[in-house]
Amino acid sequence: MFGKLLNFSSMAHFRKDPFGPAWVIISPERGLEASDFGSVRHHDSTCPLCPGSEASSREIRALRPSASPTNSPDWRLRVIENPAALLYPKNFEQQGVELFKQAPSSGYQEIIIEHPQHQMLLDNMPLEHLVDLLKLYRDRLEHLSEQPDVKHVQITRNVGAVAGAVYEHPHAQVLALPVSNRWVNEELNAAQSYFDKHGSCLFCDVIQAEINGRERIISYNQSFIALAPYASKTPFETWILPRQHGGAFSLQASNTLPLLAELLQALLRAMNAALDYPPYNMIFHSLPVNDNKNYHWHIEILPRLTKQAGFDWGSGFYINPTAPEDAVRFLRATLALQEVGA
Amino acid sequence: MFGKLLNFSSMAHFRKDPFGPAWVIISPERGLEASDFGSVRHHDSTCPLCPGSEASSREIRALRPSASPTNSPDWRLRVIENPAALLYPKNFEQQGVELFKQAPSSGYQEIIIEHPQHQMLLDNMPLEHLVDLLKLYRDRLEHLSEQPDVKHVQITRNVGAVAGAVYEHPHAQVLALPVSNRWVNEELNAAQSYFDKHGSCLFCDVIQAEINGRERIISYNQSFIALAPYASKTPFETWILPRQHGGAFSLQASNTLPLLAELLQALLRAMNAALDYPPYNMIFHSLPVNDNKNYHWHIEILPRLTKQAGFDWGSGFYINPTAPEDAVRFLRATLALQEVGA
Repeated sequence: MFGKLLNFSSMAHFRKDPFGPAWVIISPERGLEASDFGSVRHHDSTCPLCPGSEASSREIRALRPSASPTNSPDWRLRVIENPAALLYPKNFEQQGVELFKQAPSSGYQEIIIEHPQHQMLLDNMPLEHLVDLLKLYRDRLEHLSEQPDVKHVQITRNVGAVAGAVYEHPHAQVLALPVSNRWVNEELNAAQSYFDKHGSCLFCDVIQAEINGRERIISYNQSFIALAPYASKTPFETWILPRQHGGAFSLQASNTLPLLAELLQALLRAMNAALDYPPYNMIFHSLPVNDNKNYHWHIEILPRLTKQAGFDWGSGFYINPTAPEDAVRFLRATLALQEVGA
Repeated sequence: MFGKLLNFSSMAHFRKDPFGPAWVIISPERGLEASDFGSVRHHDSTCPLCPGSEASSREIRALRPSASPTNSPDWRLRVIENPAALLYPKNFEQQGVELFKQAPSSGYQEIIIEHPQHQMLLDNMPLEHLVDLLKLYRDRLEHLSEQPDVKHVQITRNVGAVAGAVYEHPHAQVLALPVSNRWVNEELNAAQSYFDKHGSCLFCDVIQAEINGRERIISYNQSFIALAPYASKTPFETWILPRQHGGAFSLQASNTLPLLAELLQALLRAMNAALDYPPYNMIFHSLPVNDNKNYHWHIEILPRLTKQAGFDWGSGFYINPTAPEDAVRFLRATLALQEVGA
């Protein structure tokens, strides 16, 4: 009944919220039945991201032996156009009147397939594979942020259906948008206010203070630090930041990426051991290349351990039942056990 | 293992996010086991909100026959202290240094029990009962917003476990906070910019434009209008606004509340018939009494039909698969069927 009454004839497009800074994508052509809301694409028989399914997707880039042709199944890493893409390369021309602005669904949507093996986790993949993957994230971010009308590139890893994962196969979603990101903008505003007052980077100063205080640091090495933010919004929220200042991940030096890979693997192993493989979201917060604003790129990892109860859903207010200092003590203990066991 | 390692000795308190405008409540004394995350309090045997359980909660106010004493079970409406309260009447004294500010957990948390019957819905309760309930919402909002150190009072109805409901029994959560609300603030900023430019209220002008255009109006009467916002973030997002300008719900004239009750019941009946009783959140957006900012109070109703996939969870970006115009056509058709059947 639901499907019959609705008319999904129009195309996906952006609409500007007149009551706030956000742009929303309205995608009526998806035409879901009421019962389909919230469903995840299941792949009981064949996984469209596994080797052998290459013909079912449009390959954008792949790492495979140089003699092999496009779409051959011997890739190690593969970037495809998102088969459910709602964004297409188009001018972001704003139309309409002040209260009802809209624009075409301009942008790019890609899927990065992180390993040929369906069950492989970031935790366990060979370190050199993870380094190549980090380089691939970085290169897509760089390439897409240089396209016309792209204002923000977000790389998001959703792991587990509860965290919004569309595929079981390890993958990252890449979204190049003609509008800036709400959370990055909040951080940019805070960083700019702080810089105006102190002449230094907010993130650099927090990193230094956390290194001095130590109680919210999970682990760190020469180039990167993993910490639980002082005002963590959810239990076991974790950020990884470069210790040297830089606003764009795409400008991060290649020779530091093995250190990022090591820290990320240690952290994910500890999190998965401590919390029994929780669903989680991992989000890169980065400026586009050549944007000189006061910013400090980082990765946010948000395990989905609590339901978003009324306090945060729709209310804009967070109650976190786990102090970050407690989460850090627990993750550190798990890290230490792993090192003893290794 | 999880519970043993963590130390939950400290008290609930506010922490200021140095990377944005938000304050977060850290409530380590809740001391949940890892397996408890996301669980909802179930009441298989006795419901603590049903008549007969009065002694288990602290009554703040109740509507019952005037001869009956406090805690007698013959109430029609009842306000109790939230048994899981993390906020207490206290001065909101900010402590700590710039990057690590905190404050005591100052505020008030109440539960409004909306009807004695466990299965009663807002849809079906007698209209005069709903009018009394709306007056009670309004009175709690007014009373709490006048308390010292209260900056924002939010009334939230979570219906269904998926929407974060803690009880099955119909109820509303009231939260009086020493900090302003993030989403109301975004709307305040937009309304102020608009007023500076046009000298008129953003919300009033949107209401007028929607009345002229009609395609996003679900229903309206002399005093209130129900519409789907132009840039709806989720399918079937619905707002109810007073047609006459006013920033605080607590200043809404009593003689208009029967019209609000009628519209709200019609809308919820249509939504429940159309979407088969979806879980939903219903949130009052209102200024405290005596706040003269440019604002227009309203109610937001957000059915939870989609999982919050990666696009919105952590990414700050919304993709809505149902155009508000389609949602409105569908709800209007359901409303018409109800009127024919009535």
